[in-house]
Formats: sequence, C-alpha cells, structure tokens
Amino acid sequence: MENSINPAKPIQRVLLVIAMHAEAMPIVDVLKLTQADSAIFPKGVPWIRYTGSLEGLFDIDVVVPGKCPIFGVDNVGTVPLALATFAAIQALQPDLVINAGTAGGFKAKGACVGDVFLATQVAYHDRRIPIPIFDTYGIATTKCTPVPNMIAALGFKEGNLSTGNSLDMTQQDEQLIKSNDASIKDMEGAAVVYVTNLLSVPAILLKSVTDIVDGVRPTTEEFLENLSTAAVALLKTVVMALKFVHGKTVTEL
Amino acid sequence: MENSINPAKPIQRVLLVIAMHAEAMPIVDVLKLTQADSAIFPKGVPWIRYTGSLEGLFDIDVVVPGKCPIFGVDNVGTVPLALATFAAIQALQPDLVINAGTAGGFKAKGACVGDVFLATQVAYHDRRIPIPIFDTYGIATTKCTPVPNMIAALGFKEGNLSTGNSLDMTQQDEQLIKSNDASIKDMEGAAVVYVTNLLSVPAILLKSVTDIVDGVRPTTEEFLENLSTAAVALLKTVVMALKFVHGKTVTEL
Repeated sequence: MENSINPAKPIQRVLLVIAMHAEAMPIVDVLKLTQADSAIFPKGVPWIRYTGSLEGLFDIDVVVPGKCPIFGVDNVGTVPLALATFAAIQALQPDLVINAGTAGGFKAKGACVGDVFLATQVAYHDRRIPIPIFDTYGIATTKCTPVPNMIAALGFKEGNLSTGNSLDMTQQDEQLIKSNDASIKDMEGAAVVYVTNLLSVPAILLKSVTDIVDGVRPTTEEFLENLSTAAVALLKTVVMALKFVHGKTVTEL
Repeated sequence: MENSINPAKPIQRVLLVIAMHAEAMPIVDVLKLTQADSAIFPKGVPWIRYTGSLEGLFDIDVVVPGKCPIFGVDNVGTVPLALATFAAIQALQPDLVINAGTAGGFKAKGACVGDVFLATQVAYHDRRIPIPIFDTYGIATTKCTPVPNMIAALGFKEGNLSTGNSLDMTQQDEQLIKSNDASIKDMEGAAVVYVTNLLSVPAILLKSVTDIVDGVRPTTEEFLENLSTAAVALLKTVVMALKFVHGKTVTEL
C-alpha cells in the first residue's frame, strides 16, 4: 500500500479529481475517456471513473464523486472528494493528481470570471478551533507542489486557495479568507491536498472562476450562470497542463 | 470489496472510531487493547489501531486518526476521521461501527456536562449551499441506525447531533443547529455516518458532553476543563453499550 515519488521518473499516470459532473464532462469528452467499471471502488459507492489517455501519450483517469443517491446532486464538499481521491490513489497509484474545478474569485486579488488560477497554497476558512496550536491545525496552511516551469510556460495566474464546505461566505469566513490571503475560494481543494500529502503524491490545483465573491452580484446567481463557461475555460487549461506534463518528471514541472 | 449486513448474524466485530487520543485511551486501557501494526493502512498515515476483545466475547478495534505530523495535535474534524473510518471498514469489515467522542451540549435540550447522548439523527451546520436541492444535500439530515432496545435497556439520553468543523459557533451555525433540532454538536459525527452509510455498515454514535454551548462559559475553557471527566463518562457508556451488543444481531439492538 505504498505510494512513493521517484523524482527521476517521467509522469506516466495522471489522476484528475473533479467534484462536479458539469466540470468533468467537457474534459472527459474532449479527451475521449470512457467510463471504467467501478470495481476499484467499494461496492455501492456513487463514485465514477473515466479512463483513457492523452493522445496515447500517458494514462489519464478522471474520478468524480458522483451524485448523492438521496438528493441527486453532485457530491460536493470536502468529505466526498477526499474519500474518492483517497480510494482512487490507492487503486491507481498515479504519479500526479490534478484537482480541477470551479471557484469563487476575489477582484481585490485580480480575479475575473473565466480566469483559471493555479493554487500555490491552500488553507481552510471553516475550521475554527480557538485553542492554541489547534487553531493553526484547523487552518492548515499548506504549500502545493511547486510547478514553476509550468507557470512560466503556460502563463497561469497564481494565488492562494481557501477552502470551506459552504458556497456562501459569512463574516467569519471572510476574515479567515483574508487572513489566508486567498485569491480564490472553493469547497474541496484543501481536502484534496490533505489526502495527496497523506499519501505522498504530488498535486496541482486548477480552479476556474465562476463568480466574484467581493463583487455586487449574489454568488449563487453568478455561479449557476457561469458554470458552463468556467468549465470550458477549465477544460482548455487542463489540456494545456496535461500536454506540458507529458515527458516530464515532477521536479521538472 | 463488499460490505453487506446480514441482519441474522450476531455482531462479532465492532470498530470504534474516535477523533481524540484523550477520548480513546481510557477505552483502550480498560479493554486492555494493544496497538496493532499499521499494515492495514497506507504507509505514512498517522492513523493508529488498537485491537483486542471485550472479555474474549467479540473482536474490538479502536481506530484514531492520530496526530497531525506538522502541528502535533489530534487530527480532529470531518475529513481525517472520515478517511480513517473508510480505510478501517475496508480492512476490518466490522459488523458495527461506534463513533465515540465528546460534544457540546445544549441546556435548552436538557444537556448537562458529563451526560452521554446517543445520536438518533445527524446533520451538518457548516455546509451552506443556497441552491435548491443542494441546500438540503449540504445539511444532509440522516437517521442513525435505530437501537431502541439498547436505549430502553441502558437508559441513554437521545438527541439529534449537528456536525461542523469548528469548535466555536457563529450566528449562522447556531441558526442551522437550531433548525437541525440538535441536542449536541460535534466535529465529526455526520461525516462518520456518511462513510458508514456509503459502505452499508450500521453505526452508533455516543457523545459525551464537555461544555454547554448555550451556557455562560466560553466553550474552549469548559471543553479543556471537562475533557477528561467527559472521557471517563464516555468510557463507562461505551463499555455498557459493548456488553449490550454481545450476542445480538443489529436488528436486536
């Protein structure tokens, strides 16, 4: 059950973990991935795996946490994607994990709708534990796997990502998001990084902005209106990133 | 990788999942469990398993998510315990999961420090997703495995449990906790039930009250002051519950 990084080994298998169907399907379609049987997962879980390759160059799996069997909506939030990521890494032993998805952006940090950010650092804004040391554990500020060459070559916007399980933002969330110096906020990223660090797999987070959190329009309205546009921007960026990854080791990214 | 409940099969293996070392160790000590090797878990994870039996009657494993390797504190919160519970169920195939831990209690619902509640229903108070259907998905109200005979025999206090990743409580948390009609609030329970339902394993949640959330004293102060007292109350209740479980099927609980 060991995952170990060999810095000299070219990346041969990439696992994309994506919370929402609408975010994943453009990528699945363009890469012509096919739905795999779910035998790698425990019986009964709603997780779905799509598998194939990038133009025959290396193996790609896309794993989504699927739909809630009770409510029929995507299993968004930290726990479902953390579990699916954990199980997928165990089964597939990828060389690299990419968490692709949508996010709210802060115009004060230069974000516009449709921008795709590469997260350089993640933290939580909804784990407030006001006991010394537990407080910093709760926020869990963590650097992402450095990819300076990818950023330089592809011109990605960079920024800190703050994660919480809510789509909206309370005053307390806002304080912590500011303290996390976040350009973008999402509902899964820090939990994916927690899992990839636990299992010693490098991870890249690409987040496409659906709404401007510090703007004038309600998040929900903007989110729903821009979800498909953001998913297309995300698709383009993910394909660029995958092509850049081809033939490289993690330390060359 | 199948977990299936056989309602006619007496419970032979119980898995206790416990977030904090201070909550787990009285139980480990009294039951004379010993630390197992961690080969059932992926290499490098901080999760710890203690194993043994209840007076030779049936197998018991206690799994704790261990200490954060960076901050050195217990890995509290939904994601770490969900992951450890998922991996432990996969490896150990228990007939029953018990999530034992501490919680804040509401005096308006009759809670006192040192009370142990059996949770009859769980929900979240920190997953606000103000989109139709996603809103109810976020709250995720879920009935726990019914144990009417255990409640009648052992005289447990019953109540709804509301889960969030913070020790404190904002105004928005409070609104949702009230709407969840919760007697107690914790930081893991709903996520454990999510995992046990995902894997079709019955689960019992026993929560010992460390602090009165709607009282006059700060939660942190009361929590730290009463943690060991609450852990002893929890121990007594867990041992009673385990003895009651012996020789019974899940439907007889």
